[in-house]
Amino acid sequence: MLTVSSARLQSRIAALARFGALPGGGVTRMCWSPAHEEARAWLLGEIKTAGLTPWVDTAGNIFGGLGLAAFDRARPAVLTGSHIDTVPEGGILDGALGVLAGLECLETIREAGETPRKPLGVVAWSDEEGRYGSLFGSRAFCGRLDAAAIPAMAAVDGERLVDAMRRAGFDALRAPEAQAPSGAVDAYVELHIEQGPRLEEAGVPIGVVETIVGVRRARVVFLGQADHAGTTPMERRRDAFLAAADYALKARELVVTRGGPRAVTNFGVVHVHPGASNIVPGRAELVHEMRDPDPAVLERLAADCAALAQEVAHAREIGVEIRPMSATLPAPCAPRVQAVIEAACDALGHRRQRLYSAAGHDAQNLAAVCDAGMVFIPSRGGRSHRVDETSDAEAIERGANVLLHTLLRLAA
Amino acid sequence: MLTVSSARLQSRIAALARFGALPGGGVTRMCWSPAHEEARAWLLGEIKTAGLTPWVDTAGNIFGGLGLAAFDRARPAVLTGSHIDTVPEGGILDGALGVLAGLECLETIREAGETPRKPLGVVAWSDEEGRYGSLFGSRAFCGRLDAAAIPAMAAVDGERLVDAMRRAGFDALRAPEAQAPSGAVDAYVELHIEQGPRLEEAGVPIGVVETIVGVRRARVVFLGQADHAGTTPMERRRDAFLAAADYALKARELVVTRGGPRAVTNFGVVHVHPGASNIVPGRAELVHEMRDPDPAVLERLAADCAALAQEVAHAREIGVEIRPMSATLPAPCAPRVQAVIEAACDALGHRRQRLYSAAGHDAQNLAAVCDAGMVFIPSRGGRSHRVDETSDAEAIERGANVLLHTLLRLAA
Repeated sequence: MLTVSSARLQSRIAALARFGALPGGGVTRMCWSPAHEEARAWLLGEIKTAGLTPWVDTAGNIFGGLGLAAFDRARPAVLTGSHIDTVPEGGILDGALGVLAGLECLETIREAGETPRKPLGVVAWSDEEGRYGSLFGSRAFCGRLDAAAIPAMAAVDGERLVDAMRRAGFDALRAPEAQAPSGAVDAYVELHIEQGPRLEEAGVPIGVVETIVGVRRARVVFLGQADHAGTTPMERRRDAFLAAADYALKARELVVTRGGPRAVTNFGVVHVHPGASNIVPGRAELVHEMRDPDPAVLERLAADCAALAQEVAHAREIGVEIRPMSATLPAPCAPRVQAVIEAACDALGHRRQRLYSAAGHDAQNLAAVCDAGMVFIPSRGGRSHRVDETSDAEAIERGANVLLHTLLRLAA
Repeated sequence: MLTVSSARLQSRIAALARFGALPGGGVTRMCWSPAHEEARAWLLGEIKTAGLTPWVDTAGNIFGGLGLAAFDRARPAVLTGSHIDTVPEGGILDGALGVLAGLECLETIREAGETPRKPLGVVAWSDEEGRYGSLFGSRAFCGRLDAAAIPAMAAVDGERLVDAMRRAGFDALRAPEAQAPSGAVDAYVELHIEQGPRLEEAGVPIGVVETIVGVRRARVVFLGQADHAGTTPMERRRDAFLAAADYALKARELVVTRGGPRAVTNFGVVHVHPGASNIVPGRAELVHEMRDPDPAVLERLAADCAALAQEVAHAREIGVEIRPMSATLPAPCAPRVQAVIEAACDALGHRRQRLYSAAGHDAQNLAAVCDAGMVFIPSRGGRSHRVDETSDAEAIERGANVLLHTLLRLAA
C-alpha cells in the first residue's frame, strides 16, 4: 500500500518553520510580510523539486499541479492544500501541515508512477489568517471576494491591503481575476491540526470534519470623553475603556449562557485612545469575534451583543458604534468527501470520528464551489495559535497517509 | 498699579499653540518631540525679545533671568514658570499659561524699570507630563532624580529617554547636573489653569493652592495564555484581557468607595498581546494611576489595589505582576507664599479661595527646596487634557496680574 515519506515531510516542515522563526520557537509569518514572501519563494522551489508544475494567481495563491497547469472545466481537478501565513507568534503546523502534506502526497503519487484519472493540485491560499481579510485567497478563487471592498481592506494597524500586496509585487485590485472557472474543481480536501483538545482526549487519531463554524467579527467602538485624570471628578467621567471592559465581561457571559455549548467569543484586539496615563480614555475599540457551527445561533448572539453594547453605553452615558468587519456562514462538508476519508481511514486501519471545526478554514469557501472536506489530526494539549503548537510525528504521518489515500480515491 | 499686557500675553499663547497644533484645535507637543523642540527654540527667542537672559540646563529646562544668569546661593532668586510640553491631544493652556504669564510678568517689570531686591527668573520645566518620567525637569533641578534609573526610563511605547534626549541634542545621563545649589531659590510660584470645575462653579476667579495631590503610577501586567480563539473551550481559556477588564472595573469601585471624596484613579494606557482577533490575549498591561492629597490614603489604596489584582488573577488562574512606575508624595504649599498670593489678590480686588490641586505640578518638587505656591484660574467647564481646554481672556489677565504682584512682593 502506497505511503508518504515521513522523513521528507518532517524535513520540509522544519525548513518552512525557519521563515519568520522566533527565538523561543514558533513563527510570526503574516501574509505579505517579508518572511511570508521568502517562504513563498521557497515553496515554489519545493514544488518544482517535487516534479510538479508551479504557478501563482493574481490573489497570491500558490499552486503545484500534477497533470494540471491551469483550471479547466473540461478536466475537473482534485485539489488539496491549506496556507503558509500564520498569526503573530503562531505555531509551525497551522496551515503549513496541509500545504506540505499535500505536496508530499502529490510527490509520492508522481514517484510511484501512479496516473490518477483526474488531475491533482496542491495549493497554499493567501491570507487565511485574515490579516487584511479573512480567508482572502480562497475567497478570490471561489468568486466570493467583494471587488468594491478591496481598496478599504486593511490590517488592524491601519496598513492597507493594496499597499501590502504592492510591496509583494501584486495588484490587489486584480485579485478577483483569480476566480476559477465554474466546475473546474471536482473536490477539495484539506489536512489540518485540530487546534483543540477533542481528538487527543478521545484517543482517536483522525477527525472527519462535518461542519466548519461561522465566524463574525465586528469592531465595537465606545466613544466617551477624554478628560484630565486628576482633576475630573470620578462621577463625571465618561470613560470609554471602563465601558469597553464592562461590555467585554458581560458579552463573554452572554455568549456562554445563551449561545450553547459550541459558541465561543474573543476580544483579541483592544485599542485605547489617546493612551496617556493621565488622560481619561475618550475612545476604546474592541474587535469582538464570535463563532458557532449553527448560523441561527450566530445571528441571535450578534443581535443580543449589539443590544448589550447599547445598554452598557447608555448606562455610562457614552456612545457606541458597532462596525461589522467580516462574517462567514457555517459551512457543511460534502457527505461524499466525508465517506471517502472514512474509507481511507478504514483501509489504513486508523480509528476516526466525526467532529465540527471550531476554527474557520479555506475549505468553507471551497465548499461553495465543489465537494469539500477536511481531515484533522490531534493537536498536542489542544494548543494552537501559540508558539508551542505541535503534533506528534506519528500523528502527522497518519494524517498524511489518510490524505494520500483520500486523494487517490477522489482522483480515481 | 502695574499691570501686564493682556494683548501681548494672548498673542504669545496663540503663537506657542501653533507648535504641534491639531487640525480641530488643541495640540500634541510631547517632550523632546520635533514640535516641542521647535517650541523650545521659539521660547528662547521670546525670552531674548523680552530683554531677559536666556539659558538651558542639562535637563532641558529653559530659563529667562531678570538680574539672573545662573543660580547662586549668595543671591537667592524668586522663580516662576511651568512647562511647554503637553499630553497627546492636549489643550493650549496647560503649562503654556504659566510659562508665558511668567515671561509677561518679568517683561512688564523690566519695562517699568522696577528693580526688585531679589533676582527673578521664569522657567519652562522639561517633561512635566511625564512621557518618559513624571515632572522630569523640576525633579532634576531639585536634586530628586535617581541617576541610576535614567538609562531605563522610557515612554509607554518603549522609546528610551536617552534616545529621545539624544535626538534633541541632550545627554540624559547628565540631567542630574541641572540640580541648583542649595538655597539658590528663595521662592517659587506657578500660575496654572485649575483643570477642574471647582473655581468656575464657585464663581471665584483665583484659587490659592494649599496642597498638591500625590500621584502613584504602576504597570499592572496580567499574564494568561495565548490560545486559538475558536478551538479552545471557553472554560479553559486564561484570558489576560478579561482579567484586566475585571480588575479595572473593581479597582475603580475600590478607590471610589474606600478612598474618600478626593481620591481618583485612571487606566489611561491599555495594551493587549499578541493583538489578533483570533487569538485569546496572553498578556494585558494597564497603567494604573491613583491620586490623593493625603499620603496615608494613597498608601492604603495602593496596598488594597495590589491585593485586589492578586485576587482577580487567582480567581482566573492567571498571573499578575505590579511594577511601580512613579510615586510622588502630596506636597503642601508654603503658608508664606499662600499669604503673599492672597495679599496680591486683595490689592487687586479679586476674590480668591483656597483649594488643593488634583493634578501633579512641578511646584511639588520646588516645595522640597524652597517656599513654593500655586495660583489657579478657572478652567472653562473644568475641561483639561483635551483639545477644547480653555479659560476666558479676562480670567487669564486676572491670573497674570495676581502672579505679577505676587512676584513683586516675593522679590521685594
